[in-house]
Amino acid sequence: MTSTRVPKTFLVRTEIDIILADLAEGDSVPSERELATRFGVARETVRQALRELLVEGRIRRQGRGTVVSRPKLTQPLSLRSYTEGAISFGRTPGRILVAWEDVEADAETAADLDVPLQTTVMHLERVLLADGDRVGLESTYLPLHRFSALRGTYDPTTSLYRAIRATGVELAAARERIETALATPREAALLECSTALPMLLLHRRSVDAAGAPIERVRSLYRGDRIAFEAKLGPENH
Amino acid sequence: MTSTRVPKTFLVRTEIDIILADLAEGDSVPSERELATRFGVARETVRQALRELLVEGRIRRQGRGTVVSRPKLTQPLSLRSYTEGAISFGRTPGRILVAWEDVEADAETAADLDVPLQTTVMHLERVLLADGDRVGLESTYLPLHRFSALRGTYDPTTSLYRAIRATGVELAAARERIETALATPREAALLECSTALPMLLLHRRSVDAAGAPIERVRSLYRGDRIAFEAKLGPENH
Repeated sequence: MTSTRVPKTFLVRTEIDIILADLAEGDSVPSERELATRFGVARETVRQALRELLVEGRIRRQGRGTVVSRPKLTQPLSLRSYTEGAISFGRTPGRILVAWEDVEADAETAADLDVPLQTTVMHLERVLLADGDRVGLESTYLPLHRFSALRGTYDPTTSLYRAIRATGVELAAARERIETALATPREAALLECSTALPMLLLHRRSVDAAGAPIERVRSLYRGDRIAFEAKLGPENH
Repeated sequence: MTSTRVPKTFLVRTEIDIILADLAEGDSVPSERELATRFGVARETVRQALRELLVEGRIRRQGRGTVVSRPKLTQPLSLRSYTEGAISFGRTPGRILVAWEDVEADAETAADLDVPLQTTVMHLERVLLADGDRVGLESTYLPLHRFSALRGTYDPTTSLYRAIRATGVELAAARERIETALATPREAALLECSTALPMLLLHRRSVDAAGAPIERVRSLYRGDRIAFEAKLGPENH
């Protein structure tokens, strides 16, 4: 059993956790050199502990220094939009349009939207922001026969769910899959993070009350900036 | 914008994805050397692409080689137990007892279980298995005034929820938080993985129909071996 071998990084990490517990949001974290001197360890040991704290979202780079992060944006797992979730958590949502185009449905998209393979569908790709921070990259596929009208009316930097509801369509149910993933170089660049950062990958398929598909969504969220919360009741049995 | 610089690893990864698409579960993946020769790239480039596929759970080590993985164990986000979820996905659940002890409630545990700080509570820590593979590490805290009887009756390698129900207590609702995390060296050793592997961290607080706390659970799952699935309806608004 290797669990009794506790590397120095872990001990240093525990010490830094104690320091962080006494700091407030936005406070400066002591420098790598200062921590290495204080604990009498190599700077590389401190660097590794700080890297872990960055990945977990406890600290973040700011300018040339490092500060204590705000709590992760916590999103309810629900039929509410990202917009509503961010606002209810006290953050200002925003979106940057990356792509809005017609594409041919691949096998998974065709199955989810219940259209023949290679049917032209609407693809909308946006970076999701919270108080200006990039938290996720959302890729939505919509069946054109239902939503082509959005082309003339929808502002892609606003809530898509509100626009869908405005066309008279109500989201009635969704199935969502949550797992970990790593970002591709393109995704990491759009999310301004490293490809080594653990990400949360969500796949959602939403339908209306008649069970007809509304959207297929693939969302990649920075693991250091977001958490999800679910309320479970007997109806989820 | 760095998104136009596509590293070789990513191109190699795309080529390997095409190879994997033609292979079945359990099939051997061509060796690092073979792939490096085939694509005319350095072995380190192939190694990095294979590392990503390991993290994502698409491939896994087996003996001295690498094979295509089975699909990740998919657990419903629900009040059902791990046991029921694994069985419904066609896997055989198992548990290895790590610790079963009385501990003093820290601030978070005391708040979740609605007991005074430092009250003695029951702590149960188990490695969760699916077909013998280690998939998660579950740490459960139970209020002793409700569940001390479990000490004499409960076999910790079986379903805890079944044992709780057998005492006449019904789980009525829970709140669950999902985020990414990295394992500590101890946790990584118990899960037989690297501390660099992205993990899913779940916190659950379950209550009975009267709202009285039943348990606080902290579960750490290997991101390469598990995914969660939620069914969302209007009641989740």
